[in-house]
Amino acid sequence: METLWESRFALRTQRMTSSLIRELLKLTQRPEVISFAGGLPAAEYFPVDRFQEACQRVLATQAHYALQYSPTEGYLPLREMIAERLSRYNICVEVENVLITTGSQQALSLIGALLINPGDHVLVEQPTYLGALQAFATYQAEYVGVPTDDHGICVDELPAALRHGPKFMYILPNFQNPAGVTLSAGRRERLIALAHQQGVPIVEDDPYGQLRFEGEHLKPLVVEDAEQSGNNGKAYTGNVIYVSTFSKTLAPGLRTAWIVASPPVINKLVQLKQGADLHTSTFTQMVIYEVAKDGFIDEHVRRLRQVYRQRRDTMLAALDRYMPSEVRWTQPEGGLFLWMHLPPGTDVRTLFEEAVRRDVAFVPGDAFFTTPNPPPTARLNFSCMPEDAIIEGIRRLSGAIQDVQAKAVPVPAP
Amino acid sequence: METLWESRFALRTQRMTSSLIRELLKLTQRPEVISFAGGLPAAEYFPVDRFQEACQRVLATQAHYALQYSPTEGYLPLREMIAERLSRYNICVEVENVLITTGSQQALSLIGALLINPGDHVLVEQPTYLGALQAFATYQAEYVGVPTDDHGICVDELPAALRHGPKFMYILPNFQNPAGVTLSAGRRERLIALAHQQGVPIVEDDPYGQLRFEGEHLKPLVVEDAEQSGNNGKAYTGNVIYVSTFSKTLAPGLRTAWIVASPPVINKLVQLKQGADLHTSTFTQMVIYEVAKDGFIDEHVRRLRQVYRQRRDTMLAALDRYMPSEVRWTQPEGGLFLWMHLPPGTDVRTLFEEAVRRDVAFVPGDAFFTTPNPPPTARLNFSCMPEDAIIEGIRRLSGAIQDVQAKAVPVPAP
Repeated sequence: METLWESRFALRTQRMTSSLIRELLKLTQRPEVISFAGGLPAAEYFPVDRFQEACQRVLATQAHYALQYSPTEGYLPLREMIAERLSRYNICVEVENVLITTGSQQALSLIGALLINPGDHVLVEQPTYLGALQAFATYQAEYVGVPTDDHGICVDELPAALRHGPKFMYILPNFQNPAGVTLSAGRRERLIALAHQQGVPIVEDDPYGQLRFEGEHLKPLVVEDAEQSGNNGKAYTGNVIYVSTFSKTLAPGLRTAWIVASPPVINKLVQLKQGADLHTSTFTQMVIYEVAKDGFIDEHVRRLRQVYRQRRDTMLAALDRYMPSEVRWTQPEGGLFLWMHLPPGTDVRTLFEEAVRRDVAFVPGDAFFTTPNPPPTARLNFSCMPEDAIIEGIRRLSGAIQDVQAKAVPVPAP
Repeated sequence: METLWESRFALRTQRMTSSLIRELLKLTQRPEVISFAGGLPAAEYFPVDRFQEACQRVLATQAHYALQYSPTEGYLPLREMIAERLSRYNICVEVENVLITTGSQQALSLIGALLINPGDHVLVEQPTYLGALQAFATYQAEYVGVPTDDHGICVDELPAALRHGPKFMYILPNFQNPAGVTLSAGRRERLIALAHQQGVPIVEDDPYGQLRFEGEHLKPLVVEDAEQSGNNGKAYTGNVIYVSTFSKTLAPGLRTAWIVASPPVINKLVQLKQGADLHTSTFTQMVIYEVAKDGFIDEHVRRLRQVYRQRRDTMLAALDRYMPSEVRWTQPEGGLFLWMHLPPGTDVRTLFEEAVRRDVAFVPGDAFFTTPNPPPTARLNFSCMPEDAIIEGIRRLSGAIQDVQAKAVPVPAP
């Protein structure tokens, strides 16, 4: 008798986000497609020579350690580096505050496992990062959505939303994925104050914070939290679970990221991580450390900021030049993405198909909402295409938008 | 107001295996301790030069791919290699049967997520692999334990155990962790027939199958299953989910393992893995492929078999020489571990403390049981210590056992 697999699958698998987006994106992998759909860093700027040297050095001097099992918490020098870098702000971060994870996707998955009982609510921005929704879906989360505008999550709407009793708030403060917006300094202060008042933790997801092209660098929420609660010079014990990654500053292919949180939270996450994958690759952690150290990461990030800024400017100029007047978009001060508001009534799936026919791709915005019938939107990545392709892609996309608008059947009057 | 973290943690975290073993093992990390406690491969036999060349080659020729995001399913040439190797048996395994995971710990975690609803029963051997219990604990599994003897799980007891309606059976057929025993060919046949009759899937965990020192190599359960259900030359669609790893044949520090299963199972696992860590490190997958290819892995495994066999023989001889007559142990035909049955009434925690005082360590056996009051046992690793340390360690351990026996207060007559 063959196993009736469908009837054996656990309930949580029935709640998993459909793979529609995955399927859509497979259509965009033909080489002739100009894809603004992925979230890829520019591969041509990976510091390959530095990775070569780092691999060489690690294997020449510490191979027996690098290829062996290692502690779940992570490679100590890397944890120290992370603690030291965050401690440059007005916050005390010690090694016991830091857990290395297998990419920030694992960080989100472990945090979901730590906090979410089936049916628990998570407060999320509208729109929010799709990967977080996938991570939390495994734990059968429900959502409370709060709108965002050009200054990030609308904090005025938080008190009402918090009445749903969310287990935590999931916030991307910098150059948010997907919308590219940044939470203002004033809103950061209010958000942390509200979290304190109500005793609701915040999960701060900050993959892009270092990739600011212009304007003033703003304090991470974890730092604001430490300051408001009176940073006493001991290891951080506050309300915020901070997540960041080397994927956008060095390379995503090594899956190395980290969590900073209160030690009791880290301890429980370590137990969960032990069950999830024992530990992150010893070798990749050591290679990342060797690549990042001695200030290289800061130097490299300065280079990336210039490249990505140039590409963002190119995309903004092309949008200005080609897009019909009803289309609007955000003006990200950093990161990888901008967000496009399409004319009301646009059928985004139809637009996607028309765009792919014209060899240009984006991600339909509805995937990033937890509320039904979101407005027609699109996420565009500007980091991974050369400038001439960006211009040509926006020209094609504009053609697709105009074509779909022209063909749209007007809604008959009642 | 600070977050009351304990009250925010999800129910599943209250069920997680205590970290007592972790704490115990920290006591054994002094350099003077001869540790039989870990499950470490011999670091001095890692093929370091081959890893050097592989890193060099991958970064010289495919760096933009190796350092970038990649598909959740895994690196295609590696999946093809795995499919091809298993297809040397009488089974048809295609690429769509194969998912690469971040170590086999992640494989077990994803399988737990796929199949276990809170309270579902999993049928396990007594004793069984502790890491699997930790992975399944995250999904709030209950257990049905079935005893093992020198020929693996006692299949005669399976029909009664299956009446508990377990969601699946978790079986380590080769040189089992912790007991070192191997499931006989006859029992493999009966186990698969029973699984078929009752429609209960089997999760086959096979990290050590290649490390056989003597005797006849036995068919994996997944192959037995394909044969019994009539292997039709199409991609495997049977009852068994097969898990294996490069950790014991090449190196554990790269966290690269795999699952072979029916395509609908793989598809659902891919969705779960996307939420768990997006994908396994592109770079480590490519390095593992470059190291393993062109027959190197087989050549290297032949070398490991010799080394580990020698160490096992040394440990068996030392046990014969030093142990008191009431102590018994298994005779593993491969793998990394043997299992020691201590005299009835031995307090294993007291023995552990006495052993650590004498600078020798093992893992107390009770951690590997899901049933209360297991017999006094110990797991000894023979792969990672040089031979003189093995002999000296067994001598010390024997002293500790005799000392604890001498001090034991006899149970007063009723």
